[in-house]
Amino acid sequence: MDAEQLRENGHKMVDFIADYYKSIENFPVLSQVEPGYLRELLPDSAPHQPESLQQVFDDLQAKILPGVTHWQSPNFFAYYPSNSSTAGFLGEMLSAGLNIVGFSWITSPAATELEMIVLDWLAKMLNLPDDFLSAGNGGGVIQGTASEAVLVVLLAARDRVLRTVGKTALEKLVVYGSDQTHSALQKACQIGGIHPENCRLLKADSSTGYALSPDLLSEAVSHDIANGLIPFFLCANSNGIWFHVDAAYAGSACVCPEYRHYIDGVEEADSFNMNAHKWFLTNFDCSVLWVKASDANMVVDYKDWQVPLGRRFRSLKLWMVLRLYGVEKLQHYIRNHIELAKRFEELVAQDPRFEALSGKYTLRLAVGAPLTEERHVNAAWRLFKRKPLFFYQSLG
Amino acid sequence: MDAEQLRENGHKMVDFIADYYKSIENFPVLSQVEPGYLRELLPDSAPHQPESLQQVFDDLQAKILPGVTHWQSPNFFAYYPSNSSTAGFLGEMLSAGLNIVGFSWITSPAATELEMIVLDWLAKMLNLPDDFLSAGNGGGVIQGTASEAVLVVLLAARDRVLRTVGKTALEKLVVYGSDQTHSALQKACQIGGIHPENCRLLKADSSTGYALSPDLLSEAVSHDIANGLIPFFLCANSNGIWFHVDAAYAGSACVCPEYRHYIDGVEEADSFNMNAHKWFLTNFDCSVLWVKASDANMVVDYKDWQVPLGRRFRSLKLWMVLRLYGVEKLQHYIRNHIELAKRFEELVAQDPRFEALSGKYTLRLAVGAPLTEERHVNAAWRLFKRKPLFFYQSLG
Repeated sequence: MDAEQLRENGHKMVDFIADYYKSIENFPVLSQVEPGYLRELLPDSAPHQPESLQQVFDDLQAKILPGVTHWQSPNFFAYYPSNSSTAGFLGEMLSAGLNIVGFSWITSPAATELEMIVLDWLAKMLNLPDDFLSAGNGGGVIQGTASEAVLVVLLAARDRVLRTVGKTALEKLVVYGSDQTHSALQKACQIGGIHPENCRLLKADSSTGYALSPDLLSEAVSHDIANGLIPFFLCANSNGIWFHVDAAYAGSACVCPEYRHYIDGVEEADSFNMNAHKWFLTNFDCSVLWVKASDANMVVDYKDWQVPLGRRFRSLKLWMVLRLYGVEKLQHYIRNHIELAKRFEELVAQDPRFEALSGKYTLRLAVGAPLTEERHVNAAWRLFKRKPLFFYQSLG
Repeated sequence: MDAEQLRENGHKMVDFIADYYKSIENFPVLSQVEPGYLRELLPDSAPHQPESLQQVFDDLQAKILPGVTHWQSPNFFAYYPSNSSTAGFLGEMLSAGLNIVGFSWITSPAATELEMIVLDWLAKMLNLPDDFLSAGNGGGVIQGTASEAVLVVLLAARDRVLRTVGKTALEKLVVYGSDQTHSALQKACQIGGIHPENCRLLKADSSTGYALSPDLLSEAVSHDIANGLIPFFLCANSNGIWFHVDAAYAGSACVCPEYRHYIDGVEEADSFNMNAHKWFLTNFDCSVLWVKASDANMVVDYKDWQVPLGRRFRSLKLWMVLRLYGVEKLQHYIRNHIELAKRFEELVAQDPRFEALSGKYTLRLAVGAPLTEERHVNAAWRLFKRKPLFFYQSLG
């Protein structure tokens, strides 16, 4: 690694990216290319001799950017926001610059310790119970995505129950969620070998505000137990079931005291997850998972908290976001979005043209009660499974 | 995202990282901190008001860097090299700058298509059979780590056989590898619900050159079948078993024609994996997996090829490495390392002081025959399981 070459070319790349942000509104948000477009534009094989950085920039501009759907455009409203920020970007740069592989404490103590500390900070901002703090009896870990977070805790729950009932009982294990649950739960079940017919996605509709009905749940659990099956995983705590709260998107709002009540009841949970890369100004990927029970070794080796062995120094970007914004500005950012969302809701309610936009997409309001109608709910999933904040696009 | 703020601060970060590389040899390679050091140095909670970038740089220098084990130091010889390069770093910057979440083709067509194209380029450099090309009947995908790669193919193999024999047969499925196999295989088995006693790590010793003995394997497979069990996963192809080649580290060498013979037989494999982030100048994480059978949809949605849903635009960094170096320079880079390794082997053989270095570490030569003794082996794992290239450190 030649430091001066890195400096020279790094500056060029910074300018390229800054110029991209200056012109981002000139691009159509959704890429207009047809499948296979890039194979027409690029050679069949890698070049034999080195090419120049300028040639790469030219190709980026002419061939790659037209194939990008611009998640960072202010006009992007698909799926969920993939919030970036200068702070998050700088953290990513630094992580790539140090390029350590932090699977164990010893491989870079700062990578493990900063992650523990920063996740304690964020847990305090969310007012999570001390049980989730590494300074307490638990701890946080940055996963790549909420899918990995739910997989990791589902596996922990699975193996906890199998240690008691014996591993041949796998086929009897039952998972519960509402039919509003993200597909990540079914993917985790498939990976973990849970039988698909033992994954109960219980009906939730407008009569329950798209929340899982405790009566329905209780009935399903009793029925399964009577049939010799073993309930073991749910987004609610009963019968010793592992209770995971997936607050991937909306969880960020809970750093504002006036929205914190949406996760009242989280003290009953075994694990809690939010994606800082969705609504917390931290570049993808940064999915934050807290669990209560952690081993009490002298050092944490995060390789044992995740599917991969190697891991990047991802806490740097979250640390930089927290420091360069500070708690107040982050709260202001969330509040500003929610104000906008309320105004947007009002607008959409008055104007049917918002129903169908931009070809393949249907723009629609989030399911559930508007934010203005604040209801007290006991567990986070009752809120989050209804996707109540902002709006999202769904592929047609 | 304020483009001018990103420009200004991005330039500062480039200089910070370039200065780090200029001074990297001044640091002790292995961090000298004690567990818990960072909690003493950082506050208990996130700041309420924003801090300046300069304050963050000061803390990085004074508090974070002492806790870093410097994987990029020229004096780092632990585990495996985590090769970085200006090209790889620029690709990471760009990926963070665009910050798209490329789970489906539509979310940024270029992210999916560039990955397919670049992995076709690399497959050609490795002279992999056309079956592994997306232009052929297969395709490549960038996973984060080799652990994820082996998990993904183990799950594919598991579900393929369970579709035939019925899903209650999970407890009968048997995995084979040698006792030199990386722990990632056992982790994948645990995640996939394979019973630990059905994970056969067959003895390999110096008498077989630390390769799995075909006789031992054949015997184990016959014995398991006779007992009603179902062999389904191995690093060798027989009895319809899924054959996965994990060439995470050494696979990069096969871009040189004179080392390509080490993966003769790969045409029999179902999947092949190498880590471009180990020995191919591409920043972590970039673990490249090729499989033969892919679905024949019009577009590839990579979310279905991996555990997570979201994914970063990781092909950019591999593309930039391939373009800014070109094939010849990459081959030269590999050859140069192998020359160094040979000289190091000779040095170590003459000097017992190399046995124990730097406190907690034991520096030792890789297990297996030295490179100078070139043997033809039929399947890649016979080579790679012996970790024959270079040397690595193991925690004491």
